[in-house]
Amino acid sequence: MIGDAARAARAILLRISEPGTALIQHVRRHGPQTTVADIRAGADMPGVDVGALQARLAEADGRRDLDRAAASGARLVCPGDPEWPALLDDLARVEADCLGLWARGPLSLAEACGRAVAIVGTRTATAYGEHVTAELACGLGDRGWTIVSGLAYGIDGAAHRAALAAQAPTVAVLACGVDVPYPHGHRSLYERIAGEGLVVSEHPPGAAPQRHRFLVRNRIIAALSLGTVMVEAAARSGARSTLNHARDLLRHTMVVPGPVTSAMSTGCHVALREVVGSVLVTRAAEVIEQCGHLGELADRLSPPPRPRDALGPLVRRVFDAVPVHKPVPAQRIAITAGVRMETAEPALAALRALGLVEQGEAGWRMSRAGRDERRAERRPDSTLPLAWL
Amino acid sequence: MIGDAARAARAILLRISEPGTALIQHVRRHGPQTTVADIRAGADMPGVDVGALQARLAEADGRRDLDRAAASGARLVCPGDPEWPALLDDLARVEADCLGLWARGPLSLAEACGRAVAIVGTRTATAYGEHVTAELACGLGDRGWTIVSGLAYGIDGAAHRAALAAQAPTVAVLACGVDVPYPHGHRSLYERIAGEGLVVSEHPPGAAPQRHRFLVRNRIIAALSLGTVMVEAAARSGARSTLNHARDLLRHTMVVPGPVTSAMSTGCHVALREVVGSVLVTRAAEVIEQCGHLGELADRLSPPPRPRDALGPLVRRVFDAVPVHKPVPAQRIAITAGVRMETAEPALAALRALGLVEQGEAGWRMSRAGRDERRAERRPDSTLPLAWL
Repeated sequence: MIGDAARAARAILLRISEPGTALIQHVRRHGPQTTVADIRAGADMPGVDVGALQARLAEADGRRDLDRAAASGARLVCPGDPEWPALLDDLARVEADCLGLWARGPLSLAEACGRAVAIVGTRTATAYGEHVTAELACGLGDRGWTIVSGLAYGIDGAAHRAALAAQAPTVAVLACGVDVPYPHGHRSLYERIAGEGLVVSEHPPGAAPQRHRFLVRNRIIAALSLGTVMVEAAARSGARSTLNHARDLLRHTMVVPGPVTSAMSTGCHVALREVVGSVLVTRAAEVIEQCGHLGELADRLSPPPRPRDALGPLVRRVFDAVPVHKPVPAQRIAITAGVRMETAEPALAALRALGLVEQGEAGWRMSRAGRDERRAERRPDSTLPLAWL
Repeated sequence: MIGDAARAARAILLRISEPGTALIQHVRRHGPQTTVADIRAGADMPGVDVGALQARLAEADGRRDLDRAAASGARLVCPGDPEWPALLDDLARVEADCLGLWARGPLSLAEACGRAVAIVGTRTATAYGEHVTAELACGLGDRGWTIVSGLAYGIDGAAHRAALAAQAPTVAVLACGVDVPYPHGHRSLYERIAGEGLVVSEHPPGAAPQRHRFLVRNRIIAALSLGTVMVEAAARSGARSTLNHARDLLRHTMVVPGPVTSAMSTGCHVALREVVGSVLVTRAAEVIEQCGHLGELADRLSPPPRPRDALGPLVRRVFDAVPVHKPVPAQRIAITAGVRMETAEPALAALRALGLVEQGEAGWRMSRAGRDERRAERRPDSTLPLAWL
């Protein structure tokens, strides 16, 4: 747990600076309190517009922000706190450290993000996108994963709602103060997340959502998760920036495909073509296969094997050469199958043992089970196109 | 042009052997005529069931097959013929050489396959799959590409039909004789392709479609094309074997995604996850980008840039801080944007020059064009979520 003065200094820095700027290098070197004093003194900081920070510093008060946050049930989580997730330290890798996160909600941020996946996408989701998002978030939630997203309309909202429905932890990362329910239409969703999950933000209490803050916010969504899933996105979409941040942070980047005829899947398909290392995912088990521990492999989607799958290629060819109704001699079957009699005869015996063919006075033909087997192969999920009927 | 005796010997070998078997190594070493003589003499051939071949040889007659083919307007295209596509020689790489291809139709096989793409997929295509197939085949056909497929129901049929509609060359590779219109429901499509494109097969005239022949046929579809596109496929699908052959032949492997909720796209998504080197494609231009000459790049799907895309990040932040209706002094805008007055003033001047903001006695606010610009950013294809209204 860090001291009160350091926490108040971080509150001031979060109030007067925009996240992810060059100021962080000064804080890294000198600590938050000295940084505040240096700004007040007008010290030179490479790449930092100290004059702009001074103009804001005149209006800033760290303890007042901490009190205001406490009044709304929020706290400031800082590096060094037990609740600080080590994942956020990876932001130093992209020179965009997080100075601290205001948080509102009953969960520990570090615990909630121990096993978390971000689900992001367009605000103007289709029914398909919302359905797939709900399936993914629910499936991940059922398996104990936390869902991180941005509380926006569309995919974000569907992800949070499904997590809540699955009674899974969910974290909403805002581009405004944690006491600002934005967007307005998500006020009740915001309240539920603050009541059961976590609402977090780098921006001070009362801060309004501003355009540039959404892009910067996306790096926090990516950093808090072991991987980011993009569900639907137009050709230009903020979700792509989250995916890019995830890539830069060496997190897993995952994308859900959709109809190529849907404009809301275009951004997903572009990402699958362009973002190196991005993986196509279709269900929760595949997301866990990416982000989970070694050995958490998704089941294969292939249907269960059928009897004839067990046949060797020669026996299979003999089976294929057996007529459905009119019996023929084994010699004819051997010629049709292109095998010798020495091959055909034991193959026919094996097929009879499996109940797939039957022998009468006029020769060999399919049994009822053999006909059923052939018919089964005509179903849509059959390995091969139907060949002979 | 090879001699009549060699052509007749190849006709015999195509009649008595199944394609892609070990026999090809003997043919490669000794030529077709000696191979036929060696089979008749019962010579030992490693990996070849010579007895089975002998049983069929008794009924085979190469010249009769050539005459029968000629009667139906077909010919046997062999290695060494001007019409033989060099692409087929790549099959030696996978030890599954093609001994010759029976062909029916007015096109030269070598010319048709100079710039060809295979389009394959499930027989039980959805409306989505057929639509995307038609768009792809039409777009490729319009740009002078040949469409290769297997004449099956579903995706194959849609690909051939769209190629014919685009008056583009199309090649149907059958798993039966080129004089056997299979499947029956595609008889008129078969006739149109034989009349305007090419129907080809390794199997002798009159040969019935047999199950195992479909898998072996798929290697010809892959070999005749610079790349294979799989459009729809169930979890188990013969189309996957074509894609695998294309990969083994070092051709381009391309897959069209679809809704993750569609069983007919499951095989596509599995392939995109599992087939190393497979590329997601959504339109003809992307297929050409893969298979065409260097420089045939698909247009990017991003919409055209908007005025504010040209703004630098600081000017953009100042723009974002300008109120829509109620004017405020530049000082207030500078504090909101987090920049110095020395930055805010020239930025506001630049924005006024662009017509995006206006200055009155009470200070600065959006112009009508600025408000339009903000509104435009709220459309679904906007880069960012709406921030401030």
